[in-house]
Amino acid sequence: MYKATVNITLRKSILDPQGKAAHNALKNLGLKEVDQVRIGKLIELDIDADNKEEAHKVAETACSKLLANEVMEDFEIEIHEN
Amino acid sequence: MYKATVNITLRKSILDPQGKAAHNALKNLGLKEVDQVRIGKLIELDIDADNKEEAHKVAETACSKLLANEVMEDFEIEIHEN
Repeated sequence: MYKATVNITLRKSILDPQGKAAHNALKNLGLKEVDQVRIGKLIELDIDADNKEEAHKVAETACSKLLANEVMEDFEIEIHEN
Repeated sequence: MYKATVNITLRKSILDPQGKAAHNALKNLGLKEVDQVRIGKLIELDIDADNKEEAHKVAETACSKLLANEVMEDFEIEIHEN
């Protein structure tokens, strides 16, 4: 059993209104030190595979078929043994 | 300038309906190898601070005041120099 940690982030050229709203809220709370906020997704998958490479392939398929929108988002996969 | 990467995950005891929906969708797409899906948030903050410790403090305040709900979520902060 492997655990895949997938980081999904908006591409740099894409506006992030959710991050902008959080940034404004932090400014209103007095946290002026924060200059930018970008919000992405962190997805943990438990994968039943024979080896790391196979687990990575499953995670990649899951990302490109469903979890990430490759037009707007980048994803990074890390596989750990469980 | 520092970059804080904040991983926000639902606590283990908390049900994750979004993850469950993604899991079912992956099963329907034929990815039977995936056993569990949990979805959290990945937040990137650009922080203007004099040193790493100060940047960490700002990120921690941002998390506990706004970004994370500590009743249901855990957060982890990593600080990198920019």
